[in-house]
Amino acid sequence: MNRDLSPKSQDLVDRVQAFFDQHITPNEARYEAEMHALRAAGNPWQVVPLIEELKPIARAAGLWNLFLPHPYKGEGGVSNLDYAPLCELMGRVIWSGEVFNCSAPDTGNMETIERYGTAAQKQAWLEPLLDGKIRSAFLMTEPAVASSDATNIECSIRREGDEYVINGRKWFSSGAGHPNCAIFIVMGKTDFEAARHEQQSMVLVPRDTAGVTVLRPLNVFGYDDAPHGHMEVLLENVRVPVENILLGEGRGFEIAQGRLGPGRIHHCMRSIGAAERALELMVDRLSTRIAFGKPLSAQSIWHERIAESRCMIDQARMLTMNAAHMMDTVGNKGAKQEIAMIKVVAPNVSCKVVDWAIQAYGAAGVSQDTWLAEMYAHQRTVRLVDGPDEVHRNAIAKIEIAKRTVARAAKSA
Amino acid sequence: MNRDLSPKSQDLVDRVQAFFDQHITPNEARYEAEMHALRAAGNPWQVVPLIEELKPIARAAGLWNLFLPHPYKGEGGVSNLDYAPLCELMGRVIWSGEVFNCSAPDTGNMETIERYGTAAQKQAWLEPLLDGKIRSAFLMTEPAVASSDATNIECSIRREGDEYVINGRKWFSSGAGHPNCAIFIVMGKTDFEAARHEQQSMVLVPRDTAGVTVLRPLNVFGYDDAPHGHMEVLLENVRVPVENILLGEGRGFEIAQGRLGPGRIHHCMRSIGAAERALELMVDRLSTRIAFGKPLSAQSIWHERIAESRCMIDQARMLTMNAAHMMDTVGNKGAKQEIAMIKVVAPNVSCKVVDWAIQAYGAAGVSQDTWLAEMYAHQRTVRLVDGPDEVHRNAIAKIEIAKRTVARAAKSA
Amino acid sequence: MNRDLSPKSQDLVDRVQAFFDQHITPNEARYEAEMHALRAAGNPWQVVPLIEELKPIARAAGLWNLFLPHPYKGEGGVSNLDYAPLCELMGRVIWSGEVFNCSAPDTGNMETIERYGTAAQKQAWLEPLLDGKIRSAFLMTEPAVASSDATNIECSIRREGDEYVINGRKWFSSGAGHPNCAIFIVMGKTDFEAARHEQQSMVLVPRDTAGVTVLRPLNVFGYDDAPHGHMEVLLENVRVPVENILLGEGRGFEIAQGRLGPGRIHHCMRSIGAAERALELMVDRLSTRIAFGKPLSAQSIWHERIAESRCMIDQARMLTMNAAHMMDTVGNKGAKQEIAMIKVVAPNVSCKVVDWAIQAYGAAGVSQDTWLAEMYAHQRTVRLVDGPDEVHRNAIAKIEIAKRTVARAAKSA
Amino acid sequence: MNRDLSPKSQDLVDRVQAFFDQHITPNEARYEAEMHALRAAGNPWQVVPLIEELKPIARAAGLWNLFLPHPYKGEGGVSNLDYAPLCELMGRVIWSGEVFNCSAPDTGNMETIERYGTAAQKQAWLEPLLDGKIRSAFLMTEPAVASSDATNIECSIRREGDEYVINGRKWFSSGAGHPNCAIFIVMGKTDFEAARHEQQSMVLVPRDTAGVTVLRPLNVFGYDDAPHGHMEVLLENVRVPVENILLGEGRGFEIAQGRLGPGRIHHCMRSIGAAERALELMVDRLSTRIAFGKPLSAQSIWHERIAESRCMIDQARMLTMNAAHMMDTVGNKGAKQEIAMIKVVAPNVSCKVVDWAIQAYGAAGVSQDTWLAEMYAHQRTVRLVDGPDEVHRNAIAKIEIAKRTVARAAKSA
Repeated sequence: MNRDLSPKSQDLVDRVQAFFDQHITPNEARYEAEMHALRAAGNPWQVVPLIEELKPIARAAGLWNLFLPHPYKGEGGVSNLDYAPLCELMGRVIWSGEVFNCSAPDTGNMETIERYGTAAQKQAWLEPLLDGKIRSAFLMTEPAVASSDATNIECSIRREGDEYVINGRKWFSSGAGHPNCAIFIVMGKTDFEAARHEQQSMVLVPRDTAGVTVLRPLNVFGYDDAPHGHMEVLLENVRVPVENILLGEGRGFEIAQGRLGPGRIHHCMRSIGAAERALELMVDRLSTRIAFGKPLSAQSIWHERIAESRCMIDQARMLTMNAAHMMDTVGNKGAKQEIAMIKVVAPNVSCKVVDWAIQAYGAAGVSQDTWLAEMYAHQRTVRLVDGPDEVHRNAIAKIEIAKRTVARAAKSA
Repeated sequence: MNRDLSPKSQDLVDRVQAFFDQHITPNEARYEAEMHALRAAGNPWQVVPLIEELKPIARAAGLWNLFLPHPYKGEGGVSNLDYAPLCELMGRVIWSGEVFNCSAPDTGNMETIERYGTAAQKQAWLEPLLDGKIRSAFLMTEPAVASSDATNIECSIRREGDEYVINGRKWFSSGAGHPNCAIFIVMGKTDFEAARHEQQSMVLVPRDTAGVTVLRPLNVFGYDDAPHGHMEVLLENVRVPVENILLGEGRGFEIAQGRLGPGRIHHCMRSIGAAERALELMVDRLSTRIAFGKPLSAQSIWHERIAESRCMIDQARMLTMNAAHMMDTVGNKGAKQEIAMIKVVAPNVSCKVVDWAIQAYGAAGVSQDTWLAEMYAHQRTVRLVDGPDEVHRNAIAKIEIAKRTVARAAKSA
Repeated sequence: MNRDLSPKSQDLVDRVQAFFDQHITPNEARYEAEMHALRAAGNPWQVVPLIEELKPIARAAGLWNLFLPHPYKGEGGVSNLDYAPLCELMGRVIWSGEVFNCSAPDTGNMETIERYGTAAQKQAWLEPLLDGKIRSAFLMTEPAVASSDATNIECSIRREGDEYVINGRKWFSSGAGHPNCAIFIVMGKTDFEAARHEQQSMVLVPRDTAGVTVLRPLNVFGYDDAPHGHMEVLLENVRVPVENILLGEGRGFEIAQGRLGPGRIHHCMRSIGAAERALELMVDRLSTRIAFGKPLSAQSIWHERIAESRCMIDQARMLTMNAAHMMDTVGNKGAKQEIAMIKVVAPNVSCKVVDWAIQAYGAAGVSQDTWLAEMYAHQRTVRLVDGPDEVHRNAIAKIEIAKRTVARAAKSA
Repeated sequence: MNRDLSPKSQDLVDRVQAFFDQHITPNEARYEAEMHALRAAGNPWQVVPLIEELKPIARAAGLWNLFLPHPYKGEGGVSNLDYAPLCELMGRVIWSGEVFNCSAPDTGNMETIERYGTAAQKQAWLEPLLDGKIRSAFLMTEPAVASSDATNIECSIRREGDEYVINGRKWFSSGAGHPNCAIFIVMGKTDFEAARHEQQSMVLVPRDTAGVTVLRPLNVFGYDDAPHGHMEVLLENVRVPVENILLGEGRGFEIAQGRLGPGRIHHCMRSIGAAERALELMVDRLSTRIAFGKPLSAQSIWHERIAESRCMIDQARMLTMNAAHMMDTVGNKGAKQEIAMIKVVAPNVSCKVVDWAIQAYGAAGVSQDTWLAEMYAHQRTVRLVDGPDEVHRNAIAKIEIAKRTVARAAKSA
């Protein structure tokens, strides 16, 4: 419907769509059933058989590790612009990304290690991650401070001889509940006295290191999101060798900045995929449900909402594709405003469309009988992760104000 | 802050507030712990000890069955206007209503039996309900049809000799999950050929009647709302004596209309209590959380939202108190527009304020560590139960259009 | 529809309504025609004959100077709560207030002189104002500074012997275009070095004083609002005797605060009257206009808007009546938050309802053939005068934050 | 900032921008002064000298008739996608389009005659229009009926021998107030009994034909938009030769559909130019105005609004460029949904951003001292012309519903 995809992207879209038609969509009920069975048996924090069954099929189909921006051993090397439409497809089924080894936070973690890791770090952790044999978590947010301001972080990483000693409490560590989660990237402070953005460092912490305790899952509107989960993790005198640092002491903030861009494109395109599916579900329900003698779709209030949904979704998609294009052409830093814009727009659009779809479905919309309530909970959370809307709007505004300051100066010069 | 309460209402407010300060607020954590323990033990559909412990204390304090509009054996007899502020207080803690025997759907069911029931029906079901010994459910909504239009209902109530034979599938039957739930009021059709609003009847169906199967709980977002729950119930050739009918065949729609008004006042005032508490929580968080060097409350975007919250809450409260006053003075029918108005306004205000509070709390706001996400899920659902917003807005508009039609006719006459 | 009016207020409402039915509503076209004739003749800044014709009738009917809070020579003495519904009626026809000598800014100016003026000042200016023989203006806002922060004001009032010498540029001085406007209340600074809120003073400046130049009318969305107008006024070495000061040097800020409350009740109730009329017009149009084979009122999008309008208007009215009641019972200071709330809510509601009504009327809605576009322009401006929304929302939020700070302190004590 | 312009478009943008810098922007005050002088002299319905002075300069610079989709005598031939950014620039100064002979409704009228006119019609009217020697109007909307449904039109075009006799009342005939306006395209009905979309025809009516009376200008808010104006026109037994029909009897609806697409791209891109300028003005004001001790731009509420403005504008632009691209590639019919979407989105975005800018400017924002209030009035009107938002949203929704009906059928097949 919108500006043309590149041939490469179109080909990937077609193949991923075909994979969905054959392996994902027909298995949505099976995934639910498997999770329900695990839960009924008392422990949902288990590998889901369906996922493991589909992974080799996806890899064999060449639909594996597509997120990787730089080619690595023959995989990846897809631009943000070409990869974005694949994320949209994956956004339609919440568990589908893992099938292609393209699920957060693994994607961001793999990219981080690929970009900043040593050869040893890559061999130890990147390789098994790329093979889908282990999973990972990113331990950033802390319950005690407003983590939207990364300089607030309090987790300490103190050097003692050849080791770092880590103490802190993290939460909303997504993925840390998965039984295969083997490695954490931990953000903390190696120097509380350094310049504001040079205090932070990132270290690799194997999950089975002594002193690591995964305390509990945090729920999201009642959902525990097992088996991945959003965990609270306690780090008490956790010791890792100094080789486990990424890039070097004081480079943590820099790494955090670098990993944000692509992750946001992925988040946002998945949000758009979710919104697109919600609109389909909304229209289907309204077209087939009768009240007061006519289908709900004959009510003009729903015409307004369907039309607004289409307008919002198409605009959000174009904005996100544009941000992807900017990242590919001028880099993450040059695309800073564009990335902040999509981070605000996409999940808000998705929340709005999903909420309208819930309203169209009535009580069924808030229940487990539709995909909607869980998706709402997820999209609502996207408005908070990686910084709440307010922080991104501030960033957008500051860039805009700066542009005008320059323009006024030029004019009066 | 607003128009003065009557002395009677003020006295009740003071006493309920004192009860909250002594017995409810300090026990919020205990309730959570008891539910958590039941859940961990594998069955949350149990009586919660705290509730049973507090009920006799509330009854002894004269804070029992206050919802009853007509005095019954010395209890109740409080006007809607005087009772409304008590609902606001109860709206602050989701489980508190039951402590005062003032929780839905029991209140509506007791009122219905008190108003329309025979002496035998009252003795059998009203008395134990008023004593808090049993609980009840109202089986109205059906998964197969748009139940916002009550004429869509498909459950059949067929007379066979001295019995009614009931067949149907109901869902979102709130309270039907509770172990003490002993009686259902079932809405169905005794005559599919009668005039549109005379097909429906209501019958009393003991839960343990053969043919009744409580299939499963429906979730609301990810919450099962145990131990009350919102259940799907299958009725297969369920037989009850003809004496179990309420008011008579074909009177179901009429009863349904009659019970709506007070229930909506209660819902709406609880929504306002929830919004008020969310605003308090929001302000507290913003005042004590530091980001980018200053408390969040110093950001003018939050000034806007706090101010909007206060404006919306105060207006919604006045609108609801006015509707209560209208019901007390001109009756439910005369207050039809006012009741529809609060049904739209109050839960929408509450959803908005709670959503802002979630945003103020960040990730904690969507988790189980605050009261907010669960309250959002609940308030979002209130926008659907007893008819979605759209149905009520249509009703409001039709009354408004009719008023002007009369006015134009008068003018041109 | 809402909480009952007092007998006194109901009587006044009935009488003002009767006056409208007889003298105002039937003359709306005549007012337009008279203004049109003046304009066509080249000078709209003239007395409108209709107004002068109706004034004595209103005074004879006892509907004169009703705004006066304290009885003065047998007139006035109506509480804010009782007066508010009269303002609502007057809000329906933009020029009607003057007929009852109840139009801004004269009402605020008369109140100010009545409350703070000397006997001589009262005789000179209050008496002819109360008789409707002269009109007045209030010179506060300045083009060069953000006047929402009154401490920004730059107009200087320098004492020289027995005179004050005034220099400044004011704008949006409403009413200063009227040929009968004889007296200005000027806000300026007598001491630029005093404490922040003690620098300001108010002086009475006859319009014909040397050095006063009424420069031009400011338009409001293309309307010049003749014959009253919103004028830009230049004050160059304007000299008045020191007796012309109100209350004393440095008391200007205090007076400004005192006059705000009642004026806002008036503004807000007029906004509500405007919104109520817009809703009537909207419903009438939608009921009688056919498109695509059915009246526009059969479209559910319009049901939503009509219903929202009714909900918003009723709530805004109750909020405003409550603020009036608070002012009457706890005083303007105690009602500070309530007054700020209505100042935000009422004109925003009115703008929204009028805007929907414009949409219902199509092109006619933006033209001179309906009352709507001019009313929109007026109501949009009310969101700016006496401080923009943002300033009031800040004030509301600060009070709310302060309340919680006290509550938290009490709890932890 | 967004997807790259084609070299042709970039070159045109650069040249139009240069023309603005040299001839338009520095002359904004002069245009105001000339209009003010005409108005003060008693008749604003005059040619504005500045416009006539600039036209030959623009034509000499090759910036003339660029809107023409098909090349005509060496001018035009620019695609919608390439032309759109020029419209955005012209949207920044409301009178600038005429300088390039690119102003509505002449553009639509020229296109219509170019596409559907006979050689004689072209020679008589298209040539002088392309030369900028005469101007034109399009007489479609009627005061008596909801013209958003074109089948409602009541103007009759009755054939009598070799003439058509036209009777009707039209209004909001934009441009009909201009002294050079020489030709009207009139939409009416030649056959009230034909099929619903075959009743309408369009005829060319010279303005000086007997029976044509231009009655009065309709205002938009308080603006008369002289010298073009939006006129009410009475057609009483107006006779034109049958050769004056366009395309043939019963083809009027078809022509109306055909002319809508490009006009909407132009409208929408101008709306975006207006929004972009409003955002610049807003940021400039907020950065330079001090209240309560700091610039307004330091308030986070303004960060939110600036950020929202940037997000909305960029999205609206991409949506409009996409619609232009669709028209260029799949034609107006294939781009029907996209065109309806921009018609809703662009003026709504513009209204919102301009309204915020007004709020940033305070009282100055609603006055003639800024460009904002007049632009608001204009943009608000764009939400009504060529069909109100509601009609377009209905069209969008119906296409969306149809798509899903097809999809569901395919799935179940």
